[in-house]
Amino acid sequence: MSTEPDPRLYLEDLYIGQSFNSGTYQVDEDAIKAFASAFDPQPFHLDAEAAKRSLFGGLAASGMHTAAITMRLLVESGLPLAGGLVGMGAELAWPRPTRPGDILRVTSKIRDINPFPSRRDCGFVTFFSETRNQHRGIVQFLTGKLVVLRRGEALVRG
Amino acid sequence: MSTEPDPRLYLEDLYIGQSFNSGTYQVDEDAIKAFASAFDPQPFHLDAEAAKRSLFGGLAASGMHTAAITMRLLVESGLPLAGGLVGMGAELAWPRPTRPGDILRVTSKIRDINPFPSRRDCGFVTFFSETRNQHRGIVQFLTGKLVVLRRGEALVRG
Repeated sequence: MSTEPDPRLYLEDLYIGQSFNSGTYQVDEDAIKAFASAFDPQPFHLDAEAAKRSLFGGLAASGMHTAAITMRLLVESGLPLAGGLVGMGAELAWPRPTRPGDILRVTSKIRDINPFPSRRDCGFVTFFSETRNQHRGIVQFLTGKLVVLRRGEALVRG
Repeated sequence: MSTEPDPRLYLEDLYIGQSFNSGTYQVDEDAIKAFASAFDPQPFHLDAEAAKRSLFGGLAASGMHTAAITMRLLVESGLPLAGGLVGMGAELAWPRPTRPGDILRVTSKIRDINPFPSRRDCGFVTFFSETRNQHRGIVQFLTGKLVVLRRGEALVRG
């Protein structure tokens, strides 16, 4: 039995306004093209020349790629929740695209904490995140809804 | 010069209530784990045994994976827009998870059509999509906002 305190947070540890910072994630051109080939095969995400002639003015990551990278940053370092990040929904906006070479990081803030209607072992938490590039330009706003475990509970199927 | 009509739709071709159906996309266990390894490395997306003991009761795709597959279906067949699918934002909800072996398809409906504030070559279109599995169970609701090109225009940087 470990005597280390559990560094992960339970519902009882969260408060409105609490903020978190993730580590960083660098995106390169090959990764942008690979994600786009699999999930968003459009010229402005696949071909730098075609992208120059598009609304993006140059190669741009799929918004879904920016969302997926944000998820990775939240899971690994940005929101250290016991029971993990179990999302019920999300609202996304992409004010500018992620570009090749961008280094992304995510800052998050707890917006709301509510009881879960039908369960006593967890609650509903709403958070707001901004994903920024290395120039501090915002590439994504995210409002997410999570199921968060109470201390001493195990999040199993109800 | 082709005499074929352009099968892709411009802003002028869209109307509120217009609906679209995508093709299908089958998701297997390896794909669920590969996406999770890259973007959502949590036990219930990576390990069938751990997933059994989780809220999901078995291996479940990341919600972001369901969102990415939906994007692929929309780009390839689900929303045949001239100028492609250029998203400004999206609202997502996942009422049930995507499971290994699921065959997904997307039905979409145009919700709203508006002028773009600062540009004459395009408009703002809001659509609503449901992503369903082979049992007609809904795995994702999506409300998306797109920039859609007017006929005779090329969507370039403003």
